[in-house]
Amino acid sequence: MKKGLKIATIGGGSSYTPELVEGFIKRYNELPVKELWLVDIEEGKEKLEIVGDLAKRMVEKAGIPIDIYLTLDREEALKEADFVTTQFRVGLLDARAKDERIPLKYGVIGQETNGPGGLFKALRTIPVILDICREMERLCPNAWLINFTNPAGMVTEAVLRYSNIEKVVGLCNVPIGMEMGIAKLLSVEHSRVRIDFAGLNHMVYGLDVYLDGISVKDKVIDLLTDPRNSSFVKNIQGLGWEPAFLKALNALPCPYHMYYYKTRDMLEKDLKNAETEGTRAEVVQKLEKELFELYKDPNLNVKPPQLEKRGGAYYSDAAVRLITSIYTDKRDIQPVNTRNNGAIASIPDDSAVEVSCVITKDGPKPMAMGDLPVAVRGLVQQIKSFEKVAIEAAVTGDYNTALLALIINPLVPSDTVAKQILDEMLEAHKQYLPQFFKKISV
Amino acid sequence: MKKGLKIATIGGGSSYTPELVEGFIKRYNELPVKELWLVDIEEGKEKLEIVGDLAKRMVEKAGIPIDIYLTLDREEALKEADFVTTQFRVGLLDARAKDERIPLKYGVIGQETNGPGGLFKALRTIPVILDICREMERLCPNAWLINFTNPAGMVTEAVLRYSNIEKVVGLCNVPIGMEMGIAKLLSVEHSRVRIDFAGLNHMVYGLDVYLDGISVKDKVIDLLTDPRNSSFVKNIQGLGWEPAFLKALNALPCPYHMYYYKTRDMLEKDLKNAETEGTRAEVVQKLEKELFELYKDPNLNVKPPQLEKRGGAYYSDAAVRLITSIYTDKRDIQPVNTRNNGAIASIPDDSAVEVSCVITKDGPKPMAMGDLPVAVRGLVQQIKSFEKVAIEAAVTGDYNTALLALIINPLVPSDTVAKQILDEMLEAHKQYLPQFFKKISV
Amino acid sequence: MKKGLKIATIGGGSSYTPELVEGFIKRYNELPVKELWLVDIEEGKEKLEIVGDLAKRMVEKAGIPIDIYLTLDREEALKEADFVTTQFRVGLLDARAKDERIPLKYGVIGQETNGPGGLFKALRTIPVILDICREMERLCPNAWLINFTNPAGMVTEAVLRYSNIEKVVGLCNVPIGMEMGIAKLLSVEHSRVRIDFAGLNHMVYGLDVYLDGISVKDKVIDLLTDPRNSSFVKNIQGLGWEPAFLKALNALPCPYHMYYYKTRDMLEKDLKNAETEGTRAEVVQKLEKELFELYKDPNLNVKPPQLEKRGGAYYSDAAVRLITSIYTDKRDIQPVNTRNNGAIASIPDDSAVEVSCVITKDGPKPMAMGDLPVAVRGLVQQIKSFEKVAIEAAVTGDYNTALLALIINPLVPSDTVAKQILDEMLEAHKQYLPQFFKKISV
Amino acid sequence: MKKGLKIATIGGGSSYTPELVEGFIKRYNELPVKELWLVDIEEGKEKLEIVGDLAKRMVEKAGIPIDIYLTLDREEALKEADFVTTQFRVGLLDARAKDERIPLKYGVIGQETNGPGGLFKALRTIPVILDICREMERLCPNAWLINFTNPAGMVTEAVLRYSNIEKVVGLCNVPIGMEMGIAKLLSVEHSRVRIDFAGLNHMVYGLDVYLDGISVKDKVIDLLTDPRNSSFVKNIQGLGWEPAFLKALNALPCPYHMYYYKTRDMLEKDLKNAETEGTRAEVVQKLEKELFELYKDPNLNVKPPQLEKRGGAYYSDAAVRLITSIYTDKRDIQPVNTRNNGAIASIPDDSAVEVSCVITKDGPKPMAMGDLPVAVRGLVQQIKSFEKVAIEAAVTGDYNTALLALIINPLVPSDTVAKQILDEMLEAHKQYLPQFFKKISV
Ligand SMILES: [Mn+2]
Ligand SMILES: [Mn+2]
Ligand SMILES: [Mn+2]
Ligand SMILES: [Mn+2]
Repeated sequence: MKKGLKIATIGGGSSYTPELVEGFIKRYNELPVKELWLVDIEEGKEKLEIVGDLAKRMVEKAGIPIDIYLTLDREEALKEADFVTTQFRVGLLDARAKDERIPLKYGVIGQETNGPGGLFKALRTIPVILDICREMERLCPNAWLINFTNPAGMVTEAVLRYSNIEKVVGLCNVPIGMEMGIAKLLSVEHSRVRIDFAGLNHMVYGLDVYLDGISVKDKVIDLLTDPRNSSFVKNIQGLGWEPAFLKALNALPCPYHMYYYKTRDMLEKDLKNAETEGTRAEVVQKLEKELFELYKDPNLNVKPPQLEKRGGAYYSDAAVRLITSIYTDKRDIQPVNTRNNGAIASIPDDSAVEVSCVITKDGPKPMAMGDLPVAVRGLVQQIKSFEKVAIEAAVTGDYNTALLALIINPLVPSDTVAKQILDEMLEAHKQYLPQFFKKISV
Repeated sequence: MKKGLKIATIGGGSSYTPELVEGFIKRYNELPVKELWLVDIEEGKEKLEIVGDLAKRMVEKAGIPIDIYLTLDREEALKEADFVTTQFRVGLLDARAKDERIPLKYGVIGQETNGPGGLFKALRTIPVILDICREMERLCPNAWLINFTNPAGMVTEAVLRYSNIEKVVGLCNVPIGMEMGIAKLLSVEHSRVRIDFAGLNHMVYGLDVYLDGISVKDKVIDLLTDPRNSSFVKNIQGLGWEPAFLKALNALPCPYHMYYYKTRDMLEKDLKNAETEGTRAEVVQKLEKELFELYKDPNLNVKPPQLEKRGGAYYSDAAVRLITSIYTDKRDIQPVNTRNNGAIASIPDDSAVEVSCVITKDGPKPMAMGDLPVAVRGLVQQIKSFEKVAIEAAVTGDYNTALLALIINPLVPSDTVAKQILDEMLEAHKQYLPQFFKKISV
Repeated sequence: MKKGLKIATIGGGSSYTPELVEGFIKRYNELPVKELWLVDIEEGKEKLEIVGDLAKRMVEKAGIPIDIYLTLDREEALKEADFVTTQFRVGLLDARAKDERIPLKYGVIGQETNGPGGLFKALRTIPVILDICREMERLCPNAWLINFTNPAGMVTEAVLRYSNIEKVVGLCNVPIGMEMGIAKLLSVEHSRVRIDFAGLNHMVYGLDVYLDGISVKDKVIDLLTDPRNSSFVKNIQGLGWEPAFLKALNALPCPYHMYYYKTRDMLEKDLKNAETEGTRAEVVQKLEKELFELYKDPNLNVKPPQLEKRGGAYYSDAAVRLITSIYTDKRDIQPVNTRNNGAIASIPDDSAVEVSCVITKDGPKPMAMGDLPVAVRGLVQQIKSFEKVAIEAAVTGDYNTALLALIINPLVPSDTVAKQILDEMLEAHKQYLPQFFKKISV
Repeated sequence: MKKGLKIATIGGGSSYTPELVEGFIKRYNELPVKELWLVDIEEGKEKLEIVGDLAKRMVEKAGIPIDIYLTLDREEALKEADFVTTQFRVGLLDARAKDERIPLKYGVIGQETNGPGGLFKALRTIPVILDICREMERLCPNAWLINFTNPAGMVTEAVLRYSNIEKVVGLCNVPIGMEMGIAKLLSVEHSRVRIDFAGLNHMVYGLDVYLDGISVKDKVIDLLTDPRNSSFVKNIQGLGWEPAFLKALNALPCPYHMYYYKTRDMLEKDLKNAETEGTRAEVVQKLEKELFELYKDPNLNVKPPQLEKRGGAYYSDAAVRLITSIYTDKRDIQPVNTRNNGAIASIPDDSAVEVSCVITKDGPKPMAMGDLPVAVRGLVQQIKSFEKVAIEAAVTGDYNTALLALIINPLVPSDTVAKQILDEMLEAHKQYLPQFFKKISV
């Protein structure tokens, strides 16, 4: 039997990698990683080397015998891997900037996961992830695919529906962030708080909240709507919620719900930002530049605190926690994206959902959540419909299907606007969307 | 046994009544109406008399022995009725004008059925219809309640959930209008065209279209998207659809879908209309005034053709056709609002849906439609969620619940805007919403 | 366009054929059959000629221009057919006699449709029907397949799941027989009675009964349990039901339910019959012999009344009524076996069920029946499970799967007995079950 | 806050009690029980005192500060209890002997949980448990009700449907016994084996089996069907399974499945036992007599090993393990009877199921199991139907409903036999079934 685990990280040149490495270091006792393969594409070679060197310094500093490999050869990295993590970004942040800017020209929020931007991210990403799955079937058929690449919900469902890889989990830091935020609001340790999560990626609700195993949902909703906490709450969510809304909803929305329940405010904010500091992608581009400058410092041998601004807070914890629980059959409860299997009523069994699961060596086992509260069923269903149609468009490269996905998205205000956005974005991302253009050229 | 049927029409002073009377006259052979009781409230007395006198002249002209009774005493009208039809309007067109104008002030479409306006119409109407049901339980427990009052879907579901009246059907002229429009497009008799309808009131889709029993859906979608038919199509729908959208949707939307798939265009149109000719309620107010002037003419003894502009096209046919089919156990197929009973997947069995039914003497029996196309499931679910929460608000008079209904409505762009609209509309309709205000006053 | 319809009847040499021919003659005005192709296999040639000659005499006597063709060439018969009816019997009545006798040796009811006998009939029949479907795909892809061959429920589901033929309906005379029996009990014309049927083939329940469109279920149950009707009721059902059972069940069982709710009595009866008059197959063999003697009579030119004893009562009416309603888009209500599509809750959408349908030119459209009464859900589910596993065994020829089907059948008292029956029956029917034996020989 | 927990054990005079006490002693570190109240009825006073004295000696010997209280006053015991366990037996073993013997007279297995005997146990027990629930609502509304009284599935569902107590769990030692048996077969520690359980009480299946988190289902099925293990397997199950059956079933049946998949063999065995050693109740009566003789020994201060023969193996572990996990919010996986909430498809959300759950302080959270394998769906549904109808009969005391429950039970061979059994058993248990007799007397 192999001694130690082999991890392959696709998109290893990402600025997030130091956090992942920190996670492996921290949990080395439970999770004996032997080899960490960071793999990237030709265009990412420079970043890969910078971040790879930092990773090597980090494990050395920690005195942990993890071997770091840098490679542009994905097959080499995948071969006999035990876990494959994916954090790549097709078209890099430039593409994301277009995902955000083009819709804004038409007065529409871009939103890189469940909005028009998310559609295009899915169209670019899904063919690549399916390629990776085909390689995994050949090179490491027993490996677990832990996907962080957004839109994580759609990517997970695409793998479940259109590949033979069944060992796939989609991961997001939103739920863990909600738990930690509420722990802070309650002034208690995170470990004492547990939320029953149910919904979709970036469309997840906390159906109940427990402190030491006892429901404190009403108290939490009171705290969230107490004006005395407004600065704190706004801080974690950007904008506040109407108290009467939260009370009637009787569930905890996630920060991304702002796009759907405060669409007008979010559009204004995005428009203003685009004019001033730039879209989120543009802001992140600057942050990343600074981060890579830091990473280059040969004296840096720990994850720099500046990374937290990047938006990846708790990411390390979520990722390595999940891998550790699978590896050790820990059977703890974690919210992940997985096959529904009846956990959430009205969503097909074979769809991906984001739901509290028990994490076993056989993978995540969702906890049965029953039917969603009536008030949230519709929106969840609508995003799930959007996701399914978008995945079909990504796989088939069919123009009409892509248009349909856009039109049924709740952020898009009309079929005609949808067509304008679609046409401009298809053109803008042409090089990453061969499935749409080979059809036309034939 | 009684000779002939007793019909009670609540809101009998409506401008629609002549069409209903015409329907009864035309189908007298099959449907032996003996007594038609037109009942209205004190404020509607004058209109009741005008329209009642016209009705009397109409049956006299037709030589049909239907006795017309005019009354302000609802109990007298309901007593031992065989069919009760409801076409009343709480707060009259003035209230509807507010339903339309107030949201527009906040840049939101009013939409008198499934939008913010529809919420308020439901809040005003549902307590009244439940009162009528309680009277029916006492005075005519075996009668059928045929409801035309909007929002017809919510009213039907409220009766199913909150009264003991099980014999209730909600009726709308949209589906029959779609069938007739398509027959015209195909240049064939209406009787040769049949559509499989499934969805909710004013949110119904044609899942398939048959000509002489053979599916012609693809052809119909081609015709609907053929630029050569654009003037015709726009005429029946107001605005055209993107051809690629209709093809990908692979189902026929109803005209009200414009509000959800062309929200921005419809908002602009509504705003412009409000500034120029007035909102729809205001236009109808003028039309009604003119109609009642015509109705007063003692020489008029038929339904005047001007009524068709009112928006009630095919109304007579739909209404009397339904009553006739129930009475005669005709077992023909008609789209109505009834208890789902599994006909549409993902919608609870006990919810009201608008669906093609076989009409028997035991009422409408919905045809099993299976699951809705994935692209439409979400929107239908969202409106159904809105309806359920809105009904609960109407019954409980709970502020938070009403706010929740508004926020989850797809036409409403934010929780904060929702609150502003709610507060202004509650105040504007205060006299018709005792359930909300008695709570506060206590 | 073709003048008149072409019908192909597989198993045309059956003793039932004269009834079918009578049906076509009676409905010729509505259903202009031009060609009736009776096709059979080499072993059935003599019977085919006898019954074919009678059929020719019948149409001649009736003065109807239907051309009767007799052939052993199935492809010729199928070519461009409009309707294909199937009434063949793989292994003839000899095989059925074994289906009945072998289980009885082990103290188990044979039951040729939903019992152990039915399993073997399915194993023999399904491969043949799937062959026919493949030919139909090639020779008459637009034809409707109207299947009378038992087990009609399983055959229909096998076609739906394992062929590309979607236009398939399974037909049985049990529901129409129930309606007619109840009409007789109520002393009214059959046309005034309608039953809401839901369940599976030979496992169908009447959920409600209407006389002139008004529910008379309670009255019918009273009549069925009134000792004054016992001789009549026993006559139509063989054995009586416990009155308290029928009242609590609150639905009408079909005669085949005797096997499941009176298993011990039926087993005794079958055992006694097997010892005295022979099993049903053996009795029918004698009847058929006599029938064919009659058919040979060159002076016979109508359906002989003796045929009714054969067990095919109302068969003609059911079969031609269905074909006529499809052809004329009649939209009347008939109980048939078709794709569930949500009509009966808890049964998968793509399973075959026996349910009241509206018959259109586009095929049967089931009426939504909601959930079955709690008391019958389990048994229906159990037979559906048996059917699904049995179909899988028929298609794969897998021994273990066939054993599983037998064991989960409610008539089979143990896994060990099941294995004994399976082994003996596989051997007995070896020549008709190549799918099971080629596997072993390889 | 209270120091330590108060446990109330209804039926505290049971021979099982020493095992429960042993469990509390063993887990005292995690579960600080302060007071254990053993409560019984007047007729059980002597046994209560014997077993209570033993319990006192046991805690004294263990040096654990648990106070044991003996009482006939149920209210006193329930007051402010934290956990209520129920292990009472209405009518004692005499009644169970009748449950077993009377059906056997009619050639029917009695089966004290899901068979005719189980129906009568339910009819006697459910009114009593609902009384206890009403007292709990008053005296200890926050307590958890841990029910061991059979039929545990029906009792749990009755509490969920007909009381206001939501904190209820039904417990059985069958699943834990299956896990331990398989661990033994694999020659590994129990803690390394985990089974995905799904089904109903005494009708539970192992859908998958894991060793150290990796599925070993195929291997286990091979072992179970390997003739070399036959003596071991028969030992744990009484009779062996047909290997081909287990392979095709592709799930692990529980020992009680013998009644349904080996009905004939079990009937023979029961009949033979009844003639020789007596029914199970009669055997247990002797065992209990001997046990109580042992319990009386003032030198006995531990659970005597003879108790294991009683049939309660692993009972202590299951019971105290569950209470401990609730109390400590342990979040481990245990199979218990709880509200389905969507965990098992086709079973209503609000029905009780036996399913693997994560045990939290907020109670058991079932893991989503999706749809059951097609081959087992029917039987599970049938027993669930039986349970629902039986519960309704227990609550209403309606004769017809009780008859219906019996007839739809898969062990009962006919409606007529059902009626004979029902009539004789109602009479035999008359004193414990007031709900059936007060109706008649009025
Ligand atoms: Mn995320
Ligand atoms: Mn309408
Ligand atoms: Mn039949
Ligand atoms: Mn048990």
